[in-house]
Amino acid sequence: MKNSRREPSDSGQFAFQGLDRVLHEKARLGILSSLIANQNGLLFAELKTVCSLTDGNLNRHVQVLQKAGLVEIWKGNQGKRTVTLVRMTDEGRARFLEYISVLEQIVAEAIEASGSKERAPQSGRPRLGWSPV
Amino acid sequence: MKNSRREPSDSGQFAFQGLDRVLHEKARLGILSSLIANQNGLLFAELKTVCSLTDGNLNRHVQVLQKAGLVEIWKGNQGKRTVTLVRMTDEGRARFLEYISVLEQIVAEAIEASGSKERAPQSGRPRLGWSPV
Repeated sequence: MKNSRREPSDSGQFAFQGLDRVLHEKARLGILSSLIANQNGLLFAELKTVCSLTDGNLNRHVQVLQKAGLVEIWKGNQGKRTVTLVRMTDEGRARFLEYISVLEQIVAEAIEASGSKERAPQSGRPRLGWSPV
Repeated sequence: MKNSRREPSDSGQFAFQGLDRVLHEKARLGILSSLIANQNGLLFAELKTVCSLTDGNLNRHVQVLQKAGLVEIWKGNQGKRTVTLVRMTDEGRARFLEYISVLEQIVAEAIEASGSKERAPQSGRPRLGWSPV
């Protein structure tokens, strides 16, 4: 029978090395999620709306993603206005899906841990001789 | 037939309001994941090992979690040494599982978006009249 409890001595087991901070940041996770759902790209103004970001914030995060090779930026014209299109690169897609598979694992383990165990009583001291801080 | 493509005009659809920054931070996500798998709590030294954090970092993140009511901290003695036990609170457990359900949704949508669509060609310009930046 599988024992789902991990030994707390498993070094680095919860360090989540695969959670690349470039992708894990909340706003950038939103940008990438919206781009994977819109693979021909989204206009800057559309991204702003679906991600609820300000111009400045969106700009900053898109630049981080571009620098990391995860998105590409295109300029085009709509009438007299120059508009910006942001599109996920192939590398971005691959790295985002890797990141998503790490999240998937975290979710599965949390659900397993929360459901398969007897809930320890939370009131009172954990053992004799302990005092709260 | 369900059309999984979201309209880019859905305001805030990718803002991920439910991704509480207190829980979403990578190190804190590791701490909470290890605590939900060890519901009687983990010693500070054990947490350090499984999360691969330094004393200073672990201290800082545990304090953030304690201030948010997600973990509780107990002091006890092992021989002559004072040791610290960190344990998830009931509120922490509930909020962590809410957070996990948001992650689960993000994962499901990313997998659906990546699998159900024809991949747009990535080479060349997205449309006539666009230039890369």
